Amino acid sequence: MSASLSASSSVGIVRPQTIAFDQPFTLQNGETLPRFDLMIETYGQLNAAGSNAVLICHALSGNHHVAGRHSAEDKYAGWWDNMVGPGKPIDTDKFFVVGLNNLGGCHGSSGPLSIHPHSGKAYGADFPIVTVKDWVRTQAMLADVLGIATWAAVVGGSLGGMQALQWAMDFPERIRHALVIAAAPKLSTQNIAFNDVARQAILTDPDFHGGFYAEHGTSPKRGLRIARMMGHITYLAEDGLGEKFGRDLKNKDYRFDFDVDFEVESYLRYQGDKFADAFDANTYLLMTKALDYFDPAREHDNNLQAALAHVRAKFFVASFSSDWRFSPARSQEIVRALIRAEKNVQYAEIESSFGHDAFLMEDAAYIDAMRVYLRNIEV
Amino acid sequence: MSASLSASSSVGIVRPQTIAFDQPFTLQNGETLPRFDLMIETYGQLNAAGSNAVLICHALSGNHHVAGRHSAEDKYAGWWDNMVGPGKPIDTDKFFVVGLNNLGGCHGSSGPLSIHPHSGKAYGADFPIVTVKDWVRTQAMLADVLGIATWAAVVGGSLGGMQALQWAMDFPERIRHALVIAAAPKLSTQNIAFNDVARQAILTDPDFHGGFYAEHGTSPKRGLRIARMMGHITYLAEDGLGEKFGRDLKNKDYRFDFDVDFEVESYLRYQGDKFADAFDANTYLLMTKALDYFDPAREHDNNLQAALAHVRAKFFVASFSSDWRFSPARSQEIVRALIRAEKNVQYAEIESSFGHDAFLMEDAAYIDAMRVYLRNIEV
Repeated sequence: MSASLSASSSVGIVRPQTIAFDQPFTLQNGETLPRFDLMIETYGQLNAAGSNAVLICHALSGNHHVAGRHSAEDKYAGWWDNMVGPGKPIDTDKFFVVGLNNLGGCHGSSGPLSIHPHSGKAYGADFPIVTVKDWVRTQAMLADVLGIATWAAVVGGSLGGMQALQWAMDFPERIRHALVIAAAPKLSTQNIAFNDVARQAILTDPDFHGGFYAEHGTSPKRGLRIARMMGHITYLAEDGLGEKFGRDLKNKDYRFDFDVDFEVESYLRYQGDKFADAFDANTYLLMTKALDYFDPAREHDNNLQAALAHVRAKFFVASFSSDWRFSPARSQEIVRALIRAEKNVQYAEIESSFGHDAFLMEDAAYIDAMRVYLRNIEV
Repeated sequence: MSASLSASSSVGIVRPQTIAFDQPFTLQNGETLPRFDLMIETYGQLNAAGSNAVLICHALSGNHHVAGRHSAEDKYAGWWDNMVGPGKPIDTDKFFVVGLNNLGGCHGSSGPLSIHPHSGKAYGADFPIVTVKDWVRTQAMLADVLGIATWAAVVGGSLGGMQALQWAMDFPERIRHALVIAAAPKLSTQNIAFNDVARQAILTDPDFHGGFYAEHGTSPKRGLRIARMMGHITYLAEDGLGEKFGRDLKNKDYRFDFDVDFEVESYLRYQGDKFADAFDANTYLLMTKALDYFDPAREHDNNLQAALAHVRAKFFVASFSSDWRFSPARSQEIVRALIRAEKNVQYAEIESSFGHDAFLMEDAAYIDAMRVYLRNIEV
């Protein structure tokens, strides 16, 4: 029965762990962290050859908790539980899967919420701006600790896909496959514009206090809420939004005030509230900057093909028809550059009405494309 | 010479005037204004038959100042000066052109900034929510005052186009031509979602004070600025934004902080600041609600064709290829419903990279299409 199959295909109860890096780490912007932690989770077993490791890179608001639950009572599974587990596309019977919270995050890895080892106070706005390149370097250090010389695959959607792409460029000998999903080789002008409005909403919130809100006993929840509401619109497609909410009213008729008239308003406000309660504003700011700055072709005269010249990984690139944040055209830029650079690439364009968020959704064509690609990876 | 031709084709120095309506006016939401003013401008001369009058309806942030300048030193011409003037598409040698600030506006017509005649205090948040239908009724009252039995044409872009459409439905005998540009028969779910985020930015600004910010000596500029920055992105197309700004940096390299890195950020923040200094937040809230509520088919079982059954005006409908706020598909909905209702409609889909804002831009194909249509209107 599919219900019990589905139940048995969970990685089960999982436990995050902190990996400490007690050495200075100099970032791309020139600043040096005296030390840092990465919060991780792993699923499955590393084989004797160390050849079956898969790294999962997260997007803007993701973290290390990719699959399973933290307790039997845990209401929610990890953010990619439909993709990672025994018998699932990223099959934990075959692969040793590693999820981490990126440096600068707010879920256990060193970030703005962490205590600075010298001052004894939380970093707050003093935590440096990190880049995709920085993340990949910390992930390579993590691989060293875990005894992983070469990843069988590095996998990510959105900002996570950018990390997979950067991995292939920065450590060509240490990654065999890069799975780049719903990503882009760099943000468009419009992408940057939306990010800056989101940041301005946070930065101008009177409760932001220059990023040292914790010291003031406040939190810029208003700004973070607005940022998330706006972001959420860009993650969804008009098709999906229209199918789900249309112009449905919460009440029988128009209210003629500014409370909730339309169901979509109620949904967005709820999403904004939930996020503002759970996420750190400084981390949100950092993550959007990492997105804006990502542009690997920049160091190569804006020639992406040149940036990919030394890549050795094979690529799986996927996009979703209704994704207007990182549209299929943006994934095709990656695919074309890979082909011009004479690299191995498989491309899947998935029909979906879920917009950018489709990379997190259950979709048969998507799941199958991932499953087949990953099944063909030798370990 | 075209330069001097262009200079000579201005309506010149113009003077706004206030038209007082000293009688109670009951709005669609059931509330009654004891009286109201409309601020207007007119260009050209009404002919003896009163058959050459054209009404210009404005969009979200527009007003009565459509063409010309208020003084010889005036730095800026009216918002549609490229369209309205002697020899221009809306030719003031032929037409008597009327621009007005809509009820609820902040440029001289009665609105939240106006003094309530009974309380002696500014309305603020007590000004009622007005609808497109309400506006059309006040515009019909204005026509009575001006001695205009029937408009030769009612013209508008975006929210202005919705007013032209509503005119044709509500006063079929009083409008001969409706020019509906870059509009939609109702907002999409995504449109409403963006409007609600804009409103939430304003409503949750600590300086909003429930809409009575004037009494507190404040103004919710932070929220209004964020609303406008976000709105501005939706008025522009990725094509145009990309052509204009790309990923151009303000400085030589990334800053690694939250000041302006990219030129597009500088542009958007400037637009936001300018707007927040000049526009009233309560009016902004009202205008977005008028957009959300516009849905003439709603009273006809969501059948737009039925809503248009009694229309007698001829239609000119125009859309712009890169407009993703009100895409060509939305204009085509209007066109199809008009055709099904056996009405006269001419449709122009203009190739443009300017997005929704294209309706305000100089574009030869657009200007020509308008010119030809308006030239063929008999007066």
